[in-house]
Amino acid sequence: MIKLAIDAMGGDLGSKIVVDAVLNYLKEHDDVSFYVVGKKEELTELENKATIIDARDVMEMEDGALSILRKKETSMNKAIELVADNVCDGIVSCGSTGAFLTLATLKVKLIPGVKRAALGTFMPTLVDGHFTLILDCGASNENNAEQLVQFAEIGECVYRSVYNKNDVDVYLLSNGAEEHKGCPEGKEAYQILKNKEYSWFKGNIEAKECLNGTVDVLATGGYAGNVLLKSIEGTAMMMSSILKESLYMSLRTKIGAKIAYPALKNLKRRIDPSKGGGACLMGINKVCVKAHGNANARAFQTAIEYAISMINSPMIASLKEKYGTKN
Amino acid sequence: MIKLAIDAMGGDLGSKIVVDAVLNYLKEHDDVSFYVVGKKEELTELENKATIIDARDVMEMEDGALSILRKKETSMNKAIELVADNVCDGIVSCGSTGAFLTLATLKVKLIPGVKRAALGTFMPTLVDGHFTLILDCGASNENNAEQLVQFAEIGECVYRSVYNKNDVDVYLLSNGAEEHKGCPEGKEAYQILKNKEYSWFKGNIEAKECLNGTVDVLATGGYAGNVLLKSIEGTAMMMSSILKESLYMSLRTKIGAKIAYPALKNLKRRIDPSKGGGACLMGINKVCVKAHGNANARAFQTAIEYAISMINSPMIASLKEKYGTKN
Repeated sequence: MIKLAIDAMGGDLGSKIVVDAVLNYLKEHDDVSFYVVGKKEELTELENKATIIDARDVMEMEDGALSILRKKETSMNKAIELVADNVCDGIVSCGSTGAFLTLATLKVKLIPGVKRAALGTFMPTLVDGHFTLILDCGASNENNAEQLVQFAEIGECVYRSVYNKNDVDVYLLSNGAEEHKGCPEGKEAYQILKNKEYSWFKGNIEAKECLNGTVDVLATGGYAGNVLLKSIEGTAMMMSSILKESLYMSLRTKIGAKIAYPALKNLKRRIDPSKGGGACLMGINKVCVKAHGNANARAFQTAIEYAISMINSPMIASLKEKYGTKN
Repeated sequence: MIKLAIDAMGGDLGSKIVVDAVLNYLKEHDDVSFYVVGKKEELTELENKATIIDARDVMEMEDGALSILRKKETSMNKAIELVADNVCDGIVSCGSTGAFLTLATLKVKLIPGVKRAALGTFMPTLVDGHFTLILDCGASNENNAEQLVQFAEIGECVYRSVYNKNDVDVYLLSNGAEEHKGCPEGKEAYQILKNKEYSWFKGNIEAKECLNGTVDVLATGGYAGNVLLKSIEGTAMMMSSILKESLYMSLRTKIGAKIAYPALKNLKRRIDPSKGGGACLMGINKVCVKAHGNANARAFQTAIEYAISMINSPMIASLKEKYGTKN
């Protein structure tokens, strides 16, 4: 039975969405034992359904590095410690990304050999059923060439193990497909990857092409990766919204929409933004999933499902094997 | 009568799309006199309709700075010189961005006081009829804080003059709305803008929110700006493609689509990616518009229309006034 720690506080919409997500998950599954950490008076609905751990403090978005380490009574810190102490197999939180990265790196620790963890998200693509792993999508806001190279290596290893696929295609995000394109650290990373003669390294790719279904792994610095991910989400939401508005324009379009409903349902299945439930800190010893700060219950549940699928996958084992430590 | 220089070569789809775009434009308008530069044997359809200037060489994407300056016989160089020599009021090209920036900066020259030109694009937003000016969206691939600050200033001035709007809202692209978020140069730019106490500076904004209709100007470094712009385009194209595929799923959905056609037409009008015809180099003495490398005739025509609207606008005059030179 998987044991999953849940940081119930710190999200924009409060602990209610976390409670609902856990309850919804439990309605359909019985493979997970939840350890939910937060203000216990907000978690009463979970009594007898999950282990509730009281935490009186909340990590704030504004907390700096020192404050993050000092605030021992936060739900995030207590939930991370459940993972660090091997009580739980993984954690999901929608609190501050910076605090989550700091605590996970210091307490659950990097897999030996990994220099910096990257937030990895699997995005749906133009090819139904194919996903592109984008990393880093926001753990760092500044990366050097060596880190970009390692993000590419980690991504290849994760994708290979998760999808059991041997010929993974890895690209570097750039502002053009040509070798000489890119930000300064990207150009340097290109040369390092080329010199290492990795068969899986396929070169640069523009943001426009990265979801066309040919890219398995897209390595990028965290700042540009965050811009990429958020603009994909923003554009998908904007288009969904304009489409909906357009379909409500007149009686005729409403009738058309009703008849075309299976198509609209299919579109929603393929690109539903609320499905984008989380990003996994890759390179850490355990599965640490960051849900969106503004996740609703549906999105938080997807983040839970993502964490469970990562725990069930050989991701961590493969990364440990790659970097030479098997513990 | 506006005189517009057209670099007919250097696009992915060859000179044919340029010829078609010019012919289509002339079918509907008679306010522009075109100076089309390229291999004359490819431009015969334009005889008696435009001034044709023969150029035997083409600027390649791979050309470095030295090679760009040496290749005097390229269509791009000859077209730029028409503008530098005041024969033409502006130029449209779908050739290499790097070469275009270099030649425009050296020959048409920066407006005195401007340190670096930025590629500015107006993007449609969630609010029908509202556009967000994104700059820089790819002229540079590395920018410092001072350049970001100037992009914000240029953007405010351009938006105010083009839309005759006094209270322009300018944001910095970031990985979060909070003041402490951002890449290192972005954080520094934030502090400079804050200290200058510009009433139009509204702080940081995430990529997800930048097209929600509240942002008039989005200032960003060229690398992240390019990622943002391209991912918006890529996502819009992907969603359009999945929607189309879904509407062709079955007879029922096809009938629904036919009935809902006015709604789909409205969606296309609002977000049509082929409309994204170009970006204007802002901060240069004349209007220099870069069309997409892979522009089709429709997109190139939109770039022509964009150039003409910028020539007709008080953009250049306002920038010259702002930076204290009126010539």
